[in-house]
Amino acid sequence: MFPGARAHRSDAAGTSSSEPPVSDAPGDAAYVVVGAPLDASTTFQPGTRFGPRRVRHFAESFDDYDHHTNQRFTDLAVSDHGDIHPSDDAEEYLQFLRGTLGDVRRDDAVPLTIGGEHTVTVAGVRAVDPDVFVCLDAHLDLREEYAGNPLNHATVTRHALAAADEAVVLGARTGSETEWERARDDDVTVVAPDDVADWTPDFGDRSVYLSVDVDAADPAYAPGTGTMEPFGLEPRTMHDVVRAVAPHAEGFDVVEVNDRDDGQAAVLAAKLLRAFVFAHAADG
Amino acid sequence: MFPGARAHRSDAAGTSSSEPPVSDAPGDAAYVVVGAPLDASTTFQPGTRFGPRRVRHFAESFDDYDHHTNQRFTDLAVSDHGDIHPSDDAEEYLQFLRGTLGDVRRDDAVPLTIGGEHTVTVAGVRAVDPDVFVCLDAHLDLREEYAGNPLNHATVTRHALAAADEAVVLGARTGSETEWERARDDDVTVVAPDDVADWTPDFGDRSVYLSVDVDAADPAYAPGTGTMEPFGLEPRTMHDVVRAVAPHAEGFDVVEVNDRDDGQAAVLAAKLLRAFVFAHAADG
Amino acid sequence: MFPGARAHRSDAAGTSSSEPPVSDAPGDAAYVVVGAPLDASTTFQPGTRFGPRRVRHFAESFDDYDHHTNQRFTDLAVSDHGDIHPSDDAEEYLQFLRGTLGDVRRDDAVPLTIGGEHTVTVAGVRAVDPDVFVCLDAHLDLREEYAGNPLNHATVTRHALAAADEAVVLGARTGSETEWERARDDDVTVVAPDDVADWTPDFGDRSVYLSVDVDAADPAYAPGTGTMEPFGLEPRTMHDVVRAVAPHAEGFDVVEVNDRDDGQAAVLAAKLLRAFVFAHAADG
Amino acid sequence: MFPGARAHRSDAAGTSSSEPPVSDAPGDAAYVVVGAPLDASTTFQPGTRFGPRRVRHFAESFDDYDHHTNQRFTDLAVSDHGDIHPSDDAEEYLQFLRGTLGDVRRDDAVPLTIGGEHTVTVAGVRAVDPDVFVCLDAHLDLREEYAGNPLNHATVTRHALAAADEAVVLGARTGSETEWERARDDDVTVVAPDDVADWTPDFGDRSVYLSVDVDAADPAYAPGTGTMEPFGLEPRTMHDVVRAVAPHAEGFDVVEVNDRDDGQAAVLAAKLLRAFVFAHAADG
Amino acid sequence: MFPGARAHRSDAAGTSSSEPPVSDAPGDAAYVVVGAPLDASTTFQPGTRFGPRRVRHFAESFDDYDHHTNQRFTDLAVSDHGDIHPSDDAEEYLQFLRGTLGDVRRDDAVPLTIGGEHTVTVAGVRAVDPDVFVCLDAHLDLREEYAGNPLNHATVTRHALAAADEAVVLGARTGSETEWERARDDDVTVVAPDDVADWTPDFGDRSVYLSVDVDAADPAYAPGTGTMEPFGLEPRTMHDVVRAVAPHAEGFDVVEVNDRDDGQAAVLAAKLLRAFVFAHAADG
Amino acid sequence: MFPGARAHRSDAAGTSSSEPPVSDAPGDAAYVVVGAPLDASTTFQPGTRFGPRRVRHFAESFDDYDHHTNQRFTDLAVSDHGDIHPSDDAEEYLQFLRGTLGDVRRDDAVPLTIGGEHTVTVAGVRAVDPDVFVCLDAHLDLREEYAGNPLNHATVTRHALAAADEAVVLGARTGSETEWERARDDDVTVVAPDDVADWTPDFGDRSVYLSVDVDAADPAYAPGTGTMEPFGLEPRTMHDVVRAVAPHAEGFDVVEVNDRDDGQAAVLAAKLLRAFVFAHAADG
Ligand SMILES: [Mn+2]
Ligand SMILES: [Mn+2]
Ligand SMILES: [Mn+2]
Ligand SMILES: [Mn+2]
Ligand SMILES: [Mn+2]
Ligand SMILES: [Mn+2]
Ligand SMILES: [Mn+2]
Ligand SMILES: [Mn+2]
Ligand SMILES: [Mn+2]
Ligand SMILES: [Mn+2]
Ligand SMILES: [Mn+2]
Ligand SMILES: [Mn+2]
Repeated sequence: MFPGARAHRSDAAGTSSSEPPVSDAPGDAAYVVVGAPLDASTTFQPGTRFGPRRVRHFAESFDDYDHHTNQRFTDLAVSDHGDIHPSDDAEEYLQFLRGTLGDVRRDDAVPLTIGGEHTVTVAGVRAVDPDVFVCLDAHLDLREEYAGNPLNHATVTRHALAAADEAVVLGARTGSETEWERARDDDVTVVAPDDVADWTPDFGDRSVYLSVDVDAADPAYAPGTGTMEPFGLEPRTMHDVVRAVAPHAEGFDVVEVNDRDDGQAAVLAAKLLRAFVFAHAADG
Repeated sequence: MFPGARAHRSDAAGTSSSEPPVSDAPGDAAYVVVGAPLDASTTFQPGTRFGPRRVRHFAESFDDYDHHTNQRFTDLAVSDHGDIHPSDDAEEYLQFLRGTLGDVRRDDAVPLTIGGEHTVTVAGVRAVDPDVFVCLDAHLDLREEYAGNPLNHATVTRHALAAADEAVVLGARTGSETEWERARDDDVTVVAPDDVADWTPDFGDRSVYLSVDVDAADPAYAPGTGTMEPFGLEPRTMHDVVRAVAPHAEGFDVVEVNDRDDGQAAVLAAKLLRAFVFAHAADG
Repeated sequence: MFPGARAHRSDAAGTSSSEPPVSDAPGDAAYVVVGAPLDASTTFQPGTRFGPRRVRHFAESFDDYDHHTNQRFTDLAVSDHGDIHPSDDAEEYLQFLRGTLGDVRRDDAVPLTIGGEHTVTVAGVRAVDPDVFVCLDAHLDLREEYAGNPLNHATVTRHALAAADEAVVLGARTGSETEWERARDDDVTVVAPDDVADWTPDFGDRSVYLSVDVDAADPAYAPGTGTMEPFGLEPRTMHDVVRAVAPHAEGFDVVEVNDRDDGQAAVLAAKLLRAFVFAHAADG
Repeated sequence: MFPGARAHRSDAAGTSSSEPPVSDAPGDAAYVVVGAPLDASTTFQPGTRFGPRRVRHFAESFDDYDHHTNQRFTDLAVSDHGDIHPSDDAEEYLQFLRGTLGDVRRDDAVPLTIGGEHTVTVAGVRAVDPDVFVCLDAHLDLREEYAGNPLNHATVTRHALAAADEAVVLGARTGSETEWERARDDDVTVVAPDDVADWTPDFGDRSVYLSVDVDAADPAYAPGTGTMEPFGLEPRTMHDVVRAVAPHAEGFDVVEVNDRDDGQAAVLAAKLLRAFVFAHAADG
Repeated sequence: MFPGARAHRSDAAGTSSSEPPVSDAPGDAAYVVVGAPLDASTTFQPGTRFGPRRVRHFAESFDDYDHHTNQRFTDLAVSDHGDIHPSDDAEEYLQFLRGTLGDVRRDDAVPLTIGGEHTVTVAGVRAVDPDVFVCLDAHLDLREEYAGNPLNHATVTRHALAAADEAVVLGARTGSETEWERARDDDVTVVAPDDVADWTPDFGDRSVYLSVDVDAADPAYAPGTGTMEPFGLEPRTMHDVVRAVAPHAEGFDVVEVNDRDDGQAAVLAAKLLRAFVFAHAADG
Repeated sequence: MFPGARAHRSDAAGTSSSEPPVSDAPGDAAYVVVGAPLDASTTFQPGTRFGPRRVRHFAESFDDYDHHTNQRFTDLAVSDHGDIHPSDDAEEYLQFLRGTLGDVRRDDAVPLTIGGEHTVTVAGVRAVDPDVFVCLDAHLDLREEYAGNPLNHATVTRHALAAADEAVVLGARTGSETEWERARDDDVTVVAPDDVADWTPDFGDRSVYLSVDVDAADPAYAPGTGTMEPFGLEPRTMHDVVRAVAPHAEGFDVVEVNDRDDGQAAVLAAKLLRAFVFAHAADG
């Protein structure tokens, strides 16, 4: 359970449908954490299957209260749905995950997915169907496929553009030649690491989905990730982006944390998830 | 390159077919190491993709000379083919790997596969087509599928029985109820950990393939593996089995080593591979 | 949640007392796992506070089915109460924990505590009030106090003897001079590591509480513990003890696992807990 | 022994009082390192008990000479008292530690405490009795108690304010609502991480005690600490603070280093301790 | 093999000299990677012997394409010579290594050495015989000897000045008093960490050798190195230096990476090596 | 300081020779621990330089009292001389170390050396000049040189035979062909791992030096060593050897522990050192 969140009703095993509604019914939650420990197409260092539990673990050290927004996390009606365990068929898994996240949306709550590999974002974007897809990532993730697989973590932004009209990739510093070509199209905005601090959102009333690939950060801040890419963002810059985008966003995820460091990646991911909730709630 | 092995000819990039034969042509090798870093269906702790390099790394500390058989490893015509890198389609990968191992066999050499997850054994067994499949493993690996996947590491013995007439699983201590039922059939012999030391091979002139899943060992001796299963074998017992079976075997693999320990699993795997070669060569 | 266990009712946050009984009510559980992550008096290497989650984590790789007893773990009505989080006052904490374990007993279920430091056993013994206290431990734990603290992990057997008539310490190999003197009294039996394999229980119809301090094992098998003590037991011997004692036992715990190894200690602890349940249920 | 420091006289076991004074008598030391490996109330990741030895260990790689101040560490009369080992009673321990640090002061030397959890600072502040308490910390540490314990690491600034007239907390970014309220009082100045680089001391002739909680740094620079808090200070900023405050300070500590990283936290702590000594001595 | 590089011809074991030239003959390579895993005089934390393989390993996660220079790494004719294994005599080893690097130069290729301890740079500088030696390093490395050894890693800049007319040490922040004195001579320029971002090369047509000691970076970015020195460079600054100097450089190395972190040091080293190649090739 | 030992007089820095004798003068010690952190010729995994401090660290968890011999460690007059830090010249270092160990002998105390690589044993054997050299080791260590170096860890038994008349190597399982040939001479007895349990000393009144290379143990029990060699001894067997040989021995060492595991190697080494002292003292 994410520290400060309540157990989500659908967590409970063996509950009968005849039970009367209780206070932690989904309808009461404003935010629902969903763990999506997919670890199937990780290219280099595997371990994202342990991402959600690691993020929840390192979140335990945080204070409930947020000074920036003068709110308590436990007051913000966050519930934790637990994890959706991967099947062997990635497309099937994403459909099921999308279904769960869609249920969250139908209950007027904001889904907060914890990956797992970046591929899980495809489910989130499909469930939210935003106008704009905003992503913090070292990689463009604009491939059509990778190793013959159209549902690889390196294709996420491409898939997102099937739902969203526009993608903004903040902190990207690497990709294939084809990806960089695709990135020149009008529907993609790439903001280089050095320029992210100066970037400000300008969404008007368009709806947004925000995805944080933790490898956007410099490896010093998040060594526990599948593909470290040096010359990355500082957490403070990522923090600013999350807080600036959150008021516009209807869905959020943080992905690509694994268990191959001393907690740096997980504690950063956990903090950014909380920053999203605080900023979103403060604005709502 | 496995320490003490020569570079295998097909390793060399950019070699033209017009080159004259040189002394390390495949035809000269008696044993060919092939790395098979598959890490797709690992159920719990991933990392077998780093198995082959880790096994080669920890093999560096060994003496060339083997006192038991009075042989030098470098005299035994072992070549290292390098790694066959997984594609995203496991069946396709196994077919390609089987092709490579079949080539080794056609050159009258014995394939020595280093996994990667246990699934790679399916390629080895298909290439060798043995009468008997002998396996050191904590698990029966007799499932028909796992999570909907018929090419999962937990189905290896089942697949082996499509080629071999008989399977002997040494050190097995866990499996599903269905697997244990399947194990009661005449073509499967299960030797419990406590009985392995007393087991002796009785193959007559039947051909054999030997597979070592490093999780057969107690977790103390091989913590760096996907699914640790306590109450396992001591390395000395595994050593005895490898040396007893090697003279009968036409193919060998050691699998399921990952990079999540301090080298214990890799150094054991490397030593057992060498023990196989020494015992096989001493007998030949 | 311990893999294969159900959520225990009292786990659910925000449940109202007016809810109708459902199928996983405590009354239906035969065994209840309770995490007791106390980490207050650990003398050397701290980290037992992460013991329960680590034991649950490494239990995930196990098959549901147990071949020895022909049972499935999920059929044995094990529920997981979650963790009882330590307060700063150890005596108060033990009283609360004892209350919880007493509730388990009143529901005719067997408490299975996962530590946490060995001190949590005091709560278990007080809740069960057995005739005989059986303990696997490298240490005698017969001190009256340690560093001025009468509720230290090194005093557990002494406290147990306040409830039980007799203590049997299996695998003990170290203690203070005073502890060894106390061990000569009639109510204490110490079985040296070399003699444990030959030990057989002889309890008649006396009730028993079984406590497993994972440091009873040799450090190779359980490096992740507070005070490693070489020349310890092999897991197979511990397994035999657990299975022999379980049919007589009314309470069980496994303690002193921390997060300072590669999973060896936790996977052994998890397996011994399951072995207890299987053997107890097979006999019942 | 802190590298470059001399053994402190009171280190020597079995010295008789009749010995003639020798050159490293306390009276000759200008600075005395005291290890205070308290690890009792650590909330999340324990291990500060290994802090002092880890800080001394990683200090070994430093050059003796400091270019900034043109001094050699070995010329600055630093002695190492060794560690004061915790008893089970925290208040008693702090009193004893305060006694030791008071002795250092009476010998006209500056105490340099290496924690241990932040709680040990209470002893340092009581021994020095400063006008101003300056602290680098991610946390306000202004609680009155934590988990019922008034001597918890989260209460340090509160305790310091019992001796000092004023507290300055640099780099603080989290706390409870009550702590933030307390922080609004006149005797507390909180400088947010972004503003620390612009902060300059203005103490007049008031006496100062400087405490460095290593978690003030961003987790990338000090992952080995009990409660990582992202969006922290860069070491360069901490360095500047230490050098600016040192000339005013009569006591110093660096705390909350544990052994759960690859040395980053310890090497930073060691460097800041040396920076304090160099800056203090250069000014004196 | 460095990812994206070809096997260098002299890698192949057992090739006969009568073979006809093939396409990957040294004469065709523009850049040749040479591993130099020397680990003899490492003062504090050893492990540079594993540096080259670790750098190659973590380079696997990079894209082939470089957006900054619009080039593919695989198009740049980089070959990997493999490692030159140290003998026990450091001077002899450096002579052999110098010979190999000299051969690379004679084939009109640029040597790219991966250490190993910094001492291997002496071979590189001797092979290239540059006018200017540029070095990123936390340390001055201007000693005449260290522990009686004139070929220690702390003497590298001093040795370089035997070949080069001038040395520029960027990011240096520590050294002995004698080293700092030597650094005041006209042939040495020291740029403090804070000033590196503002430094621009001004070499005219003088030839340059560029050496990157990974400890120039702050320990957060490269904990896996022999002697961590806090208050170091950010990778972005190092990146800028490498790209600015590369067009002038005729030789390059990156050194002092060991295996004592979670990959941060190796991934940074690998990236800087590639940045050198991209910038050098773009300019050529 | 080894836990339970006293500070050795020569530890104290700055003591003047005119000081009167005090109670912990060397003459009073019966055993003197000397750290010899040599780490120069380690072939594979370096880190023995951290061996002595790691052994002392993990010894902290032991009880003072030994039940087998009914003795307290603190009663046995063990003093700790501290470490003798290596110079760059191994022969010179061994001479200095031999001098120190010779001083210990002249004070009628037994030297207990903690390595450091096995090479340090040469100093111990030269200082003691025994009739018989007994060694627990996976390796024969009978080379005349290694990589051109006659003072390599692989030459220790050869050097020992320059002083002793006879060598007994227990647990050896690997060596070069030449070493095995040398081992057939009358002055060398090799006891294979399987036979060590049945070996009993038969020294008559010949004097003995006992050296424990921790790699004699199976890697599961001592992964933190330079060259792991599977199929090794169990600690209990090593314990029996140490206790059987100790009464005959005039010098002892335990070597080849590094910091690359979770403490298993160090805790075993520390325990065997204590076992030596207890058995030697009980007999004396
Ligand atoms: Mn991504
Ligand atoms: Mn990415
Ligand atoms: Mn298997
Ligand atoms: Mn298996
Ligand atoms: Mn205990
Ligand atoms: Mn114990
Ligand atoms: Mn604090
Ligand atoms: Mn803090
Ligand atoms: Mn350097
Ligand atoms: Mn350096
Ligand atoms: Mn040896
Ligand atoms: Mn050895």
